[in-house]
Amino acid sequence: MKLYDTPLAPNPRRVRWFMAEKGVDDIEIVSLNLIKGEHKTPDYLAKFGMPNVPALELDDGTTITESVAICRYLESRYPEPNLFGRTPEETAVIEMWLRRAEMMVATPLMLGVRHTHPALAALEQQNPVIGDYNKQAGLRALKMLDRRLAESEWLAGERLTIADIIGFVGLDFGRLIKLAPPPELTHLGRWAEAMRSRPAARAGMPAAAPAA
Amino acid sequence: MKLYDTPLAPNPRRVRWFMAEKGVDDIEIVSLNLIKGEHKTPDYLAKFGMPNVPALELDDGTTITESVAICRYLESRYPEPNLFGRTPEETAVIEMWLRRAEMMVATPLMLGVRHTHPALAALEQQNPVIGDYNKQAGLRALKMLDRRLAESEWLAGERLTIADIIGFVGLDFGRLIKLAPPPELTHLGRWAEAMRSRPAARAGMPAAAPAA
Repeated sequence: MKLYDTPLAPNPRRVRWFMAEKGVDDIEIVSLNLIKGEHKTPDYLAKFGMPNVPALELDDGTTITESVAICRYLESRYPEPNLFGRTPEETAVIEMWLRRAEMMVATPLMLGVRHTHPALAALEQQNPVIGDYNKQAGLRALKMLDRRLAESEWLAGERLTIADIIGFVGLDFGRLIKLAPPPELTHLGRWAEAMRSRPAARAGMPAAAPAA
Repeated sequence: MKLYDTPLAPNPRRVRWFMAEKGVDDIEIVSLNLIKGEHKTPDYLAKFGMPNVPALELDDGTTITESVAICRYLESRYPEPNLFGRTPEETAVIEMWLRRAEMMVATPLMLGVRHTHPALAALEQQNPVIGDYNKQAGLRALKMLDRRLAESEWLAGERLTIADIIGFVGLDFGRLIKLAPPPELTHLGRWAEAMRSRPAARAGMPAAAPAA
């Protein structure tokens, strides 16, 4: 099994964090330089169909992109600690929070960065209207997370799950556009600090990256 | 088990389609009128935490929103025909295509409708820049689907899965803004016709709706 990874983007970080929580250290990691376009070579596109990173190549040749699909597959191979749910009911609640964290927080903040960060101007077709709209949407969603975290230690219940990883990696990426959780969202702040202090927060991060 | 549903929105349609493929007919359906705000009452918000439809209420009181989380839960209760995958490898490939169909096609087209359709002007804060950006993104993604469907009968392989339901419901919703698949995308057209002709395409749709 080979994992194609890159250090600075948020989606690969989800998978590294997920593996670190499980102590997975026996998967070959291929680190790509996206600035050099190593995810857009004919070989890479032929293998994965799209210029997406992270990407997982199984020993039988099956290829999987999409961070959450990769994590769910890894859960089947490395079941402990459980991060996707043990019963159908628990699995459904975790997926609900995963999706809320992703669609209401992580995706808007990623689009906020993509459309407004100066360092990405050369790589992306930026539109500041799109960027600001998404940044504001992400900020509104942080209040929703804060309400949830007022009643629950972790997003999906009593233990850390994939939902927390998706939510926190999204939030932390927002720091690139100086987006910090408003201090009055104290429950969100408590949870963010708990996430940031986990050893998995630093998995594969460059020394100068925000989480270091 | 009770399913909170509404006839015109695309996410509830995913769940109805999913249930129809499995022949599920023993779940109580509560139909909500979103124009009247029946998803924003204090009771509804207390139960589900957010004004989201569809929503599933289990007999033990557990509540689940998010169409895909609901479908995955229903798969555990009504396993045949399998729509999420039987092995970890197959499950991963299906989730990869589900996510591509959702994030590259369904979500952009939904945002395209939300931000540009005149009938929604009273309900949504519309921004035509956001609407057009998303409509164009959805159109570009249709070419990606066409390439995939040139090599595969269904999005995730040799049989219909949840990925096809997500992709087609998204595409069909785009008809509200007169977005039809370009005729040169013949593989997409073949697949769309196969989807449209399934009995599940009409599950719970009003007689005047596009799929009728």
